[in-house]
Amino acid sequence: MQSDVSMPVVRRLPRYYRFLGELKKAGYTRISSRELSQRMGLTASQIRQDFNCFGGFGQQGYGYNIELLQSEIGRILGLDRLQRLIIVGAGNLGRAIANQIAFEERGFKLIGLFDAKESVVGQMVAGMPIRNVADLDEFCRAELPTVAVLTVPFDAAAAIGDQLVKLGIKGLWNFSHYDFGNRYENVSVENVHLGDSLMTLRYMING
Amino acid sequence: MQSDVSMPVVRRLPRYYRFLGELKKAGYTRISSRELSQRMGLTASQIRQDFNCFGGFGQQGYGYNIELLQSEIGRILGLDRLQRLIIVGAGNLGRAIANQIAFEERGFKLIGLFDAKESVVGQMVAGMPIRNVADLDEFCRAELPTVAVLTVPFDAAAAIGDQLVKLGIKGLWNFSHYDFGNRYENVSVENVHLGDSLMTLRYMING
Repeated sequence: MQSDVSMPVVRRLPRYYRFLGELKKAGYTRISSRELSQRMGLTASQIRQDFNCFGGFGQQGYGYNIELLQSEIGRILGLDRLQRLIIVGAGNLGRAIANQIAFEERGFKLIGLFDAKESVVGQMVAGMPIRNVADLDEFCRAELPTVAVLTVPFDAAAAIGDQLVKLGIKGLWNFSHYDFGNRYENVSVENVHLGDSLMTLRYMING
Repeated sequence: MQSDVSMPVVRRLPRYYRFLGELKKAGYTRISSRELSQRMGLTASQIRQDFNCFGGFGQQGYGYNIELLQSEIGRILGLDRLQRLIIVGAGNLGRAIANQIAFEERGFKLIGLFDAKESVVGQMVAGMPIRNVADLDEFCRAELPTVAVLTVPFDAAAAIGDQLVKLGIKGLWNFSHYDFGNRYENVSVENVHLGDSLMTLRYMING
């Protein structure tokens, strides 16, 4: 885990990457930090501070070159070096993720999909068969994935996490509601709490 | 939209609610702000500051009553007053959300599911038929949903959003990659950018 840059700054990098991609798609080639900040709802000085954590990307008098800036941020994120990824839990959510997430544009290559339910093993999802979770050890020893998406139920999460970490997994994208806390050393856990997002929306509506 | 409390504080409320629920499930009845802070990776003074935004919840010398605190936070979030919700876009992600999100525990009641694809209209998901998006106006005028989950493609998001807002929708849970910015007044938009979360994980792994 990289620790030289603070997590709030790190969390803004994907947003910059995404915004710059949209600007590029819309045909823009250059943008000033002021323009970028207005579009993103940040201050220009915030953006310059963030970019200075990575050397500044040398804004010229007439702004940043959008394509260069985006590819530089992508390189910092590691998007140019694909990590091998598996999905454990091939229910609705695991399948949606397999089918809809553009892994190769986000720094990952999906290489396997696992489920505990015998009845779904062998079904094709995203061009590959769902494998039996009983074959997880063998698969990981042969294929060496480094990252796992956890779309398993709460009660299965800790045991599967332990097993995966023993097999060399260095990152967990955790959709289960299980809280790994500091259970593992040297493993990055990114939690997705959709329920928290939904409750935040409920608060904002105020009715 | 409630604006008296800052968004970072608001975003921590669902986390408190979730942690307290887990403590309750594990059989605890009281907890001090120090204990709660250790479990959540916050400082005790942060927690007290957050709670003071809502009157403090009167911690006694021997801590908070977990059940009371959770139900009070739930009430602040609005979880006791269900908002009527529809899902627009019944692909993999829309179906996963319909099947796996515990809406009624999060302040919402799922009342309808829509898709533009004729071939899926009529299929049953989460105990209700997928409706034709062409019937959205009629349905909304009769059933008065206040919130919509947007699981439509990027190119469809703005038009569907405009239509929904005209029909009285006050909140959007936006999974499309479309950025609504300040397109609507008095409509709360909660964006879920799974790709940003995944890129953050890619950065953390650092390989």
